[in-house]
Amino acid sequence: MIDLVLVGIGTGNPEHLTLQAVRELNAADLILIPRKGEDKADLAELRRSICAEVLTNPAVRIVEFDMPRRDVADPDYRRGVAHWHQAIAHAWNEAIHANLPQGGTVALLVWGDPALYDSTLRIAAQLSPAPMTIRSIPGIMSLNMLAAAHAIPLNDIGAPFLVTTGRQLRDHGWPPGTDTVVVMLDGDCSFQHIPADAISIYWGAYVGMAEQILLSGPLTQIGPRIIATRAEARARHGWIMDIYLLRRHVAR
Amino acid sequence: MIDLVLVGIGTGNPEHLTLQAVRELNAADLILIPRKGEDKADLAELRRSICAEVLTNPAVRIVEFDMPRRDVADPDYRRGVAHWHQAIAHAWNEAIHANLPQGGTVALLVWGDPALYDSTLRIAAQLSPAPMTIRSIPGIMSLNMLAAAHAIPLNDIGAPFLVTTGRQLRDHGWPPGTDTVVVMLDGDCSFQHIPADAISIYWGAYVGMAEQILLSGPLTQIGPRIIATRAEARARHGWIMDIYLLRRHVAR
Repeated sequence: MIDLVLVGIGTGNPEHLTLQAVRELNAADLILIPRKGEDKADLAELRRSICAEVLTNPAVRIVEFDMPRRDVADPDYRRGVAHWHQAIAHAWNEAIHANLPQGGTVALLVWGDPALYDSTLRIAAQLSPAPMTIRSIPGIMSLNMLAAAHAIPLNDIGAPFLVTTGRQLRDHGWPPGTDTVVVMLDGDCSFQHIPADAISIYWGAYVGMAEQILLSGPLTQIGPRIIATRAEARARHGWIMDIYLLRRHVAR
Repeated sequence: MIDLVLVGIGTGNPEHLTLQAVRELNAADLILIPRKGEDKADLAELRRSICAEVLTNPAVRIVEFDMPRRDVADPDYRRGVAHWHQAIAHAWNEAIHANLPQGGTVALLVWGDPALYDSTLRIAAQLSPAPMTIRSIPGIMSLNMLAAAHAIPLNDIGAPFLVTTGRQLRDHGWPPGTDTVVVMLDGDCSFQHIPADAISIYWGAYVGMAEQILLSGPLTQIGPRIIATRAEARARHGWIMDIYLLRRHVAR
């Protein structure tokens, strides 16, 4: 029987790990690390170095497995994702049963927090046989780190904020009912597709990592600089992960 | 000259502290702990025990100060808050200059994350003279902990979610443009004021603490149980902090 623990590790600063995350990793029998071939964005090296830094229990085994790839040619996005999740669950199962035939505790290091735009919980629900327990250990999210890096609050006093994706912003425009929007998973600088007047942007790439880049100001002025900076950083590093907060200024 | 560092400490589990938070607290010259008289919800004892647990540098001084109270009788809510923030900034200034006349690094332990429904950044901006630097160290938020405790994702795949307050939900109903709403700062079980059909609720009180209580299910069934459980827990502990996620199920 397997106990599965999904450990949020924050956004790339090894110091983002909580004391709880460190304890849970040291209590695992097996840590699984995904590997995506030559893809630098798999962050396998970062996961390895976090393990090297915080593991003090020599009994913990670290095993890498090849991460299946999503069939991007599938015209049905949801079906493509569902197949991909099944393939990942299958890869986990193989690695677990090859390395822990008698059962035990398996840990996965989850970028950010297992609750936010991450599929690990959904994939875990597809394991067969089902784990005895599935636990989630909270981690620092990129939206926390974005706000901390700019030293700004996420919300105006007593006001809501929406967390959404680049695709949603591009397809549906400024969301109704809120003056603050945090945009994630945006490969396209979707802020280009909304009217920029009276909007401030707080943008960050690689937030929390040594490579962190921050830009902020009125969207009309800073938007073009973000587009250029993002393209240049992506070309230089071979990958990019970015996030931004938009705040609309309304007369009260 | 003063360097100010606002350290997110998570939601009451001392293990929520990140390695970064532990390092920052040990690097401070002075840690300020607010005290609200007999109010159990000031969590001064929790802050004291966190300091006792993680401080290894004997040079760090811990000083408690009496937290000013907000004038709840002021009919202008925004003005009342502004006056209160000024009074807190004044109390910080007094404690800092009494204890660090030559300047140094001052740390404040911020419940959750400094970016989320917290006034510490706004109060810090009112310090006079202004600190040389103000830094924010991200922490586990109650919404991370709520999701982790229920082992659920915050968002549906590719979908947005809104973080809002009980007052907003009560006054404006279900917010437009999203099927997931996280409600904070709700003293009133405001979910009572929206139609409960086809909505699931994931509720937690004292999330991350030893006293943690969790309830989840269809809002029609679980809503009344949450109201009763909340009232009972509040009476027993003398205070309560709770949070919930509402998810609306829509036919696709």
